[in-house]
Amino acid sequence: MGRSMDHGRAAWPAREPEIGDAMATDELLDEIRALIADREERGIRGLTDTIGPSDWAEIVQRLDDDEVAILLASVPEVEIPEILEELDPANAAAILRLRPREEAADLLEAIDPDDATDIMAELPSRDREQILQVMEPDEAAEIRLLSAYPPDTAGGRMTPAFVAISPDVRADDAIVLLRRVAEEAETIYYVYVIDEEERLLGVLSLHNLVLTRPNTPVHDVMVADPIRVTADTDQETAARLLVDKNLLALPVVDDQDHLLGIITQDDVADVIEEETTEDFERMGGSQPLDVPYRFASAGLLVRRRIGWLLFLFLAGLLTSHVLEHYSDRLDGAPALIPYIPLIIGIGGNVGSQTVTTLVRAIGVGEVRLSDVGWVLAKEMLVGLSVGLIMGLVGYLRVGVPEGFRIGLVVGATIASVALWSATVAAILPLVLERLGIDPAVVSAPLISTFVDATGLLIYMTIAGALLLQL
Amino acid sequence: MGRSMDHGRAAWPAREPEIGDAMATDELLDEIRALIADREERGIRGLTDTIGPSDWAEIVQRLDDDEVAILLASVPEVEIPEILEELDPANAAAILRLRPREEAADLLEAIDPDDATDIMAELPSRDREQILQVMEPDEAAEIRLLSAYPPDTAGGRMTPAFVAISPDVRADDAIVLLRRVAEEAETIYYVYVIDEEERLLGVLSLHNLVLTRPNTPVHDVMVADPIRVTADTDQETAARLLVDKNLLALPVVDDQDHLLGIITQDDVADVIEEETTEDFERMGGSQPLDVPYRFASAGLLVRRRIGWLLFLFLAGLLTSHVLEHYSDRLDGAPALIPYIPLIIGIGGNVGSQTVTTLVRAIGVGEVRLSDVGWVLAKEMLVGLSVGLIMGLVGYLRVGVPEGFRIGLVVGATIASVALWSATVAAILPLVLERLGIDPAVVSAPLISTFVDATGLLIYMTIAGALLLQL
Repeated sequence: MGRSMDHGRAAWPAREPEIGDAMATDELLDEIRALIADREERGIRGLTDTIGPSDWAEIVQRLDDDEVAILLASVPEVEIPEILEELDPANAAAILRLRPREEAADLLEAIDPDDATDIMAELPSRDREQILQVMEPDEAAEIRLLSAYPPDTAGGRMTPAFVAISPDVRADDAIVLLRRVAEEAETIYYVYVIDEEERLLGVLSLHNLVLTRPNTPVHDVMVADPIRVTADTDQETAARLLVDKNLLALPVVDDQDHLLGIITQDDVADVIEEETTEDFERMGGSQPLDVPYRFASAGLLVRRRIGWLLFLFLAGLLTSHVLEHYSDRLDGAPALIPYIPLIIGIGGNVGSQTVTTLVRAIGVGEVRLSDVGWVLAKEMLVGLSVGLIMGLVGYLRVGVPEGFRIGLVVGATIASVALWSATVAAILPLVLERLGIDPAVVSAPLISTFVDATGLLIYMTIAGALLLQL
Repeated sequence: MGRSMDHGRAAWPAREPEIGDAMATDELLDEIRALIADREERGIRGLTDTIGPSDWAEIVQRLDDDEVAILLASVPEVEIPEILEELDPANAAAILRLRPREEAADLLEAIDPDDATDIMAELPSRDREQILQVMEPDEAAEIRLLSAYPPDTAGGRMTPAFVAISPDVRADDAIVLLRRVAEEAETIYYVYVIDEEERLLGVLSLHNLVLTRPNTPVHDVMVADPIRVTADTDQETAARLLVDKNLLALPVVDDQDHLLGIITQDDVADVIEEETTEDFERMGGSQPLDVPYRFASAGLLVRRRIGWLLFLFLAGLLTSHVLEHYSDRLDGAPALIPYIPLIIGIGGNVGSQTVTTLVRAIGVGEVRLSDVGWVLAKEMLVGLSVGLIMGLVGYLRVGVPEGFRIGLVVGATIASVALWSATVAAILPLVLERLGIDPAVVSAPLISTFVDATGLLIYMTIAGALLLQL
């Protein structure tokens, strides 16, 4: 989201970081709430002067819709674009829909084009088209360009507000130019060098420019052939590249290497947070919400969760088939029945530990398919070790009240189930990675359900072998 | 970790981002492996010339210890510090221990002090002390200073390589100064202004300096009283502040406001990744590993996992008590037995979905204790909805073969268990947050285990009520 120290009327606020804001506190929020409740317009305006733009996200997020509407009515008009930038795009769109078209267009023109595009994407297509028609043609064109790329790609994340110069410009002239465009550019820490057809030739850092002799042509000091991504690159790939290469901005090009925009450092945390949240949700056994939890309606939560739940339910019916199949054996040794939940619980716990650790290691690029050998060996050793420890505890704990034949069955089953569960949980994510499926879909619930039925088979098999033979 | 374009002998390599590296590819790795296998020193040296420092992490991480040793023997000595910076500190320490003390000291002097401190922390204290004694006194003092702070605090993350000037310096002189120290500073995008006792007065961005009239005293253009953190601030808090305020660097001060060091943007991704990995591991039901998965021995994995496993095991024994307590009821209606794993599985799945989504929302600051009302209402509604859907499916699926009395018991239990599980999973993380305990300890396995026993109670109670009354 855009942040700005600029309270003027630049087309886009300059992305100079804020370094003087006081922190938002709970007291501040309470005070704003009280002022809103009293409809104290002047008090609100006085307070908002002291609030940095980046605090708006925190404050507005914690107010309800009515409070936000009152707040916006009391805030000076020039600050509204900054506030909208900090909101979730769906929320910002809801606010814009309530305003006349021309006013909405003016507000969107004052917002960073990448943020404006995200907000537009949340509007119904008729509203969107009507607003685009009353916007300044240049800015409407930028939004149309950015809208052409899916939001989770580099093209969808980029901003066209970069600084580009031709290779024969001198270093001192470049600094003069920077001074002129500083208001509009997303970052002036990098200047891109392009040819007459706007193909990317090189990059200069402000650092380089400042340290270079004034009359040097930028061509002589630029870093040629810089790292770039194409517009259809996945946003997470682009963000990780920015981090790994320690860049402040990453150029985005089309297939013919024309410079389209840049992705900046401040997008990285957003992208990583978004992707990590998706992984969390998948690991917990639901489909990603794609919106902040706060804005997810109960209906959306149900739709995102019910699919996996029903699938796991049907898979879970296998457990009842196993138990029905072995009902004779259970009738013959009813002492085995009370330990059924315990045993399948242990399988689920070991599997959950293994799979979350591994899916995360795959997610951050630490483990790959080629590592399957040592990963499997390590996890099987761990599964066997924790299995033997718990199996011994189980043998003693169950053996004392029920007799050591039953104790041995339970203990041996615990050890076997732990080993089996660790093995499955170690292999499955890597197999999915191989098949091109996101390994995060191997959630803890999926492993648990899978191990439930197979764990019961192991239990019944061991019971059959040991109770008949001993 | 430090990255550098500077291949010279500066005390610390300048933190100018690399913008010209080619990407590391699997082919590159294969080629290096082949050269290492053939002990092809010249070939290795030729290749390493083309590898950017940040690629080392990826390459070295995927080689085994012997391969790394051969690689380092073939690489020009001046590049070794850069490679060590990119390695996991434990790995870098292992490499240093094999070298003579003086050589280890020289290498550490050439590494960013924050990275050097992390590496030193992995050495046995005797080795550490011996190396510090042969290091340059200045650099040894810096490492001793940084070592005084735990690694997960702002003090442990910071680097002392910042640029600071007094308030009466003119803007153009400040740029001249920057030019002189550019080689040694971690970032020159911010210049800090301090008084004669080194207390933090303000901050200037390079951006500001370049755009200011040359003879202005920096005091007139600096941002006074900038955002800062104390050295004992949690590293995650500091990283989120950098992101939220969109800063390139954050000053770290002591209790008397003396400027000690800075935390830079490139630390943020590391910190967030580290903390997110810990959350993942906790959610999966283990204690955080604190080292990359690749470097975690099977013994460490067992130690980190067995505690929770045994706790959950003992808690899981409650399920066997419940089943034993109701054994008469089960004897009277043995058709209920096969559905035990299915029912507790559903409770675990609903709980796991709810708790992962919520713990993540709390982790990113989206949900707080004060939200408990609407969170609980929403999750109970969702739990009831998915419970009714699955309950209906269960009623039909079980009713057809077993008769609709049993079907009704199973269906009603499923709906109740889903509602109960969603309720527990919604409340528990917020209660823990209230008690000052990291809500991420409410793992999916913990919720599952808790819901197992209570779910069985619900099952037996409903069975008692419906089978007696219908």
